[in-house]
Amino acid sequence: MRFHEPPRFPRGFRCASRNVGLKPDARDLAILVSEVDAAAAAVFTRNQFPGAPIILGRETIKRGVLRAIVANSKVSNVATGVAGVEHARRMAAAAAREIGTTAEHVLVSSTGVIGVPLPIEKIERGITGITSELQDDPIVAAEGIMTTDTHPKALSTSAGDATITWIAKGAGMIEPNMATMLSYILTDASFDAPTLDRMLRDAVHVSFNMLSVDSDTSTSDTCVIMANGLAGRVDQHAFVAALTAGCIRMTEMLARDGEGATRLLRVTVRSARDDAGARRIAKTVLNSPLIKTMVHGADPNVGRILMAVGKCIDCEIAPSKTCASVNGFEVVRNGERVNFDDNLVRAALATSIIDLVVEVGVGMASATAYGCDLSKGYIAENAAYYSS
Amino acid sequence: MRFHEPPRFPRGFRCASRNVGLKPDARDLAILVSEVDAAAAAVFTRNQFPGAPIILGRETIKRGVLRAIVANSKVSNVATGVAGVEHARRMAAAAAREIGTTAEHVLVSSTGVIGVPLPIEKIERGITGITSELQDDPIVAAEGIMTTDTHPKALSTSAGDATITWIAKGAGMIEPNMATMLSYILTDASFDAPTLDRMLRDAVHVSFNMLSVDSDTSTSDTCVIMANGLAGRVDQHAFVAALTAGCIRMTEMLARDGEGATRLLRVTVRSARDDAGARRIAKTVLNSPLIKTMVHGADPNVGRILMAVGKCIDCEIAPSKTCASVNGFEVVRNGERVNFDDNLVRAALATSIIDLVVEVGVGMASATAYGCDLSKGYIAENAAYYSS
Repeated sequence: MRFHEPPRFPRGFRCASRNVGLKPDARDLAILVSEVDAAAAAVFTRNQFPGAPIILGRETIKRGVLRAIVANSKVSNVATGVAGVEHARRMAAAAAREIGTTAEHVLVSSTGVIGVPLPIEKIERGITGITSELQDDPIVAAEGIMTTDTHPKALSTSAGDATITWIAKGAGMIEPNMATMLSYILTDASFDAPTLDRMLRDAVHVSFNMLSVDSDTSTSDTCVIMANGLAGRVDQHAFVAALTAGCIRMTEMLARDGEGATRLLRVTVRSARDDAGARRIAKTVLNSPLIKTMVHGADPNVGRILMAVGKCIDCEIAPSKTCASVNGFEVVRNGERVNFDDNLVRAALATSIIDLVVEVGVGMASATAYGCDLSKGYIAENAAYYSS
Repeated sequence: MRFHEPPRFPRGFRCASRNVGLKPDARDLAILVSEVDAAAAAVFTRNQFPGAPIILGRETIKRGVLRAIVANSKVSNVATGVAGVEHARRMAAAAAREIGTTAEHVLVSSTGVIGVPLPIEKIERGITGITSELQDDPIVAAEGIMTTDTHPKALSTSAGDATITWIAKGAGMIEPNMATMLSYILTDASFDAPTLDRMLRDAVHVSFNMLSVDSDTSTSDTCVIMANGLAGRVDQHAFVAALTAGCIRMTEMLARDGEGATRLLRVTVRSARDDAGARRIAKTVLNSPLIKTMVHGADPNVGRILMAVGKCIDCEIAPSKTCASVNGFEVVRNGERVNFDDNLVRAALATSIIDLVVEVGVGMASATAYGCDLSKGYIAENAAYYSS
C-alpha cells in the first residue's frame, strides 16, 4: 500500500484548529468538516467510565450521518456527571451553528485530564468564526488534538478514485478496546452506514484493537469513519484493503510514538488454536514489562519470551513445539533455546523495529499486536504528571 | 501478629548456604534440613513452561513427605529439556546422600537465568560436606537463594507452642499464580500432608497469589510448607491465623523489594460481586503502569484510578456508586472526583506505603492485592540485564 506524502484530504473535507485557551499556547481545538452529509460509523471505548463525549457519541452515531467532528485536547470531560454530557451537547451545538447543520450531525471528542469540568464557554467562543480558517492540510487537525504525542499524526492513501485519510492522536493510556484513543477516518468513497460500520469493525479488529502502549484502556477511545460519497462508488475489496492497511500503519505510528518509546514492537503469534487465542498470547507478550525492557535493551532473552508465552495459562499452546524468532533470527526451537550467536542477534535488534514471531504449534490461527519498548522516558513522563 | 526479631527456626530445622561457583562470590546454594521426616505440601507456578525442578517437584510432593529442600540461584534450569530434569534428579540425589535420606524426600529449586544448562557437577561438588555447616539462622538460607533481591528475606512467628518460619526470594518476574517465586515455610507443628495442603492453598490465595511486581509469571514459582511435628499438635485456628499473617507479611516484603520499587502499593477492592471479581479488579489496578507511576510520583490521580477500574470490562461495577480513597483521603465519591486539597493528599502519599481502596458498589466481596511502584530503577535493571 502506498501512502501519500504529504497526506491529503479526500474531496469535500477540510479542517481547522485553534488555541482557544485550554492550553497555554498550543492548538487545543480542531474541527473536521465535510461539505455534504457523510455516511458514518464509529466504535468507542469499552471502559466502564466512558467520557461524556462517548455517551453522547453513541447516541449521535446511531443515525449513521455526520457533517463534522469537533474535538478539543487538554480536558477530557470524563467523570463529570450530568453537567459533562450537557457540555458535550453545547460543544456539538456550537459547531453545528458555525457550519450550518444540526447538532445531531456533529460528533464531539474531548481528550486530556479526567475529572475536570470542560471550559465550555472558552470552547464556544473558540468555535465562533473557525470556518473562515478551514484548509486542506490534515496535519492542522492532528495538531489540535495532541496531548502527550510528540508529533501530529495523519496519513492518506488511494482506493480506486477515492482517497482515505486518517487523523489520530494517542501516546499513553493506550490499549484500545473497540477503538483507539482518537482516530478519525475520512473518505470520499460512497458507502452506506451499515457497510461502513462492518468494514470499520473488521479493520479495527486487526489494527487499533491490537495496539497497546501500556495496557491501560482510555475512557475516551473513539474511532470514527465518515464517507461523503463525492468520489462515487469504488471497488469494495480495494477499499477494504486500503482501509485495513492504513489502520495498521496508523496503529504503528501511534505505537512508535508511545510515551517514552524508542522502538516499535510487533508480536506475531502463529499456529494458535483460534483467533482469540492468537490475539490473547500476542497481547500478553506485547504487554510484558520484561519483554518491553528486553526490547529497550536490545537483548534476545529466551527466558522472558518463554515466560511471557507460558503465562497465558488459559490459552492452548504446545510447549514442546513452541518456536520463536526475533528480527528473523530463530532463538527458540521446540521449546528449547537455540544455540545462536548473541552478538549477531543483538546487532540485529539495534533497530527501530523489533519483530518477535512465536509459533505455538497447536492450530492455524495467527495475530499481530503492536506496541513499544518501556523506557525511563515512560516513567519520567508519567511519574511527573500531575492530575490537577 | 507478632514476628520474632531476628527470625528463628522451628525445632529440628537448620540450614546452610555456600558459594559453589555459579556466581562469582555470593552464596548460590542453600539447603534446608529437618532432623526428622516432615509432612509437606506445595504449590507451583502455572506457567506453561515450568522449569525442570517444578516438573520433578510435582512428582516429589505427591508423597507428602520431605526431609530437605535444596535450592540454587543464578541458573533456573528452565527450557533445558530432558537433560534438565535429569540434572534436577541428580541435585536431589546429591543432597539426599549428604544428609542420609532418599532423593524422593528432597525438594529441588533452581532460580536465575532461563535456557542455560545447570552446572550440575559444580552443584554436586558444592553439596558435599555442606551438612557440617548447618546452623540456626534462617537468613543464611535466604542469602543462598537471592537473585535480584536487595536483601535476604526471612520471618518467623509463634502459633501456640509451635514456630513458623518463612524463607523467600523474588524481586522480578513476579505475578505468582498458585505460588510465589520461591517461598519455603517451615514449622514444628504437627499436621498431616492433606491438612497442610489445604491450609497452604488458603493462605497463598490471599497472599502470594495477590502479589504482582510486574505482572510477569515466573517459570519457577514454588511455595512449600514442611511440618516436622516436633512441637506436637497446636490449635488449628491459631495456626491458620499465624500462617496467613506471615504469608501476607512475606508478600509485602517481596513487593517492597520489587525491582526498582520505592513504595509498597496495596490495592483493596470492596463491595464487589464476588471474590473472583474483587481479585481481578484489585490486580488490574495494581498492575496498571499509570497507577504504578502515579504511586511513584505520589500524585492522587483520579482519572487513572477510574480508568484502571473501568477497564475491567468483564467485571461488574456500579460506576455511579464507585468510591475511592488513597491513604484514608477520599478522592472519588459516586463516580465523580471529590474536591480535595491536592497538596494535603500529596503530602499523605509521600510515604513508603500507599493504600488505595476502591468500592465498586455491587456486592459484599473484597480482596487486597500487593505490589509496588514503577520507577526508572526497574527499567535500568531490566533493560541492562543480559540473558547470557
